[in-house]
Amino acid sequence: MNGFFVVHFKLFTMSIFTKIISGEIPAYKIAENDNFIAFLDISPLVKGHVLVVPKTEIDKIFDLPDNLLSEMLVFAKPIARAIERSFNCRRCGISVVGLEVPHAHMHLIPINSANDLNFTRSKLNPSKEELEMVQNKLKNNLSDLLNQN
Amino acid sequence: MNGFFVVHFKLFTMSIFTKIISGEIPAYKIAENDNFIAFLDISPLVKGHVLVVPKTEIDKIFDLPDNLLSEMLVFAKPIARAIERSFNCRRCGISVVGLEVPHAHMHLIPINSANDLNFTRSKLNPSKEELEMVQNKLKNNLSDLLNQN
Repeated sequence: MNGFFVVHFKLFTMSIFTKIISGEIPAYKIAENDNFIAFLDISPLVKGHVLVVPKTEIDKIFDLPDNLLSEMLVFAKPIARAIERSFNCRRCGISVVGLEVPHAHMHLIPINSANDLNFTRSKLNPSKEELEMVQNKLKNNLSDLLNQN
Repeated sequence: MNGFFVVHFKLFTMSIFTKIISGEIPAYKIAENDNFIAFLDISPLVKGHVLVVPKTEIDKIFDLPDNLLSEMLVFAKPIARAIERSFNCRRCGISVVGLEVPHAHMHLIPINSANDLNFTRSKLNPSKEELEMVQNKLKNNLSDLLNQN
């Protein structure tokens, strides 16, 4: 394949998360570093539902190299605290299912019961304005938490 | 309080997981290192359901210190691979709920659908013999995987 086809084949096969990471698709970003990005799930189970995604496109979380696996929960920690501070919940739960998008991702969800982590439930369908409000609340609380440290 | 009461108050308030770690309560252990232990959930959602527990008794996973958070998924990785090798599943999923036992723990569950990670479902009630078979299968596959590396 020549360069043109390689580039276009790659664009075609990139996961939706890689397209978000590359900026091709917009997202309600909450945090980012060299190896991870966090943004809102636009079809959340619960208001405040965030996805944590490694920038390396690998399908299964346990196929990530150990250096990324060891950073993932540490990257998620302040985001989880911001979620707990922003929304009425008993704590921030975690779920890794991974049967839909072939790019490893961790769901961070404010929970009051186990049903808040139940992916067989119907999802919410928030408006752009509602998602922006959630994004702003989380980013403000995350910023406050990081400034305290 | 004198020493006698301190010891007995501590025994009384220890989580069920700390009692398993200390050997006071038996468990179907799969793996262990200095900081973590993994054993079967005796009321599994699915056959092959394993709990990964830090030995430090801290309620919420994101209250663990960063050194433990960074080790947790790396410790879980070979166990997850042994689960995938041992049971018919599309992959090993992860769930952290934490509303019942106040000692951080991660569920590793072989999944074929999102419903396999749904904690509102009724749990299985395997016999001692069934749990021992699951334990042996997981330990054998874990041992094979670790010997390959």
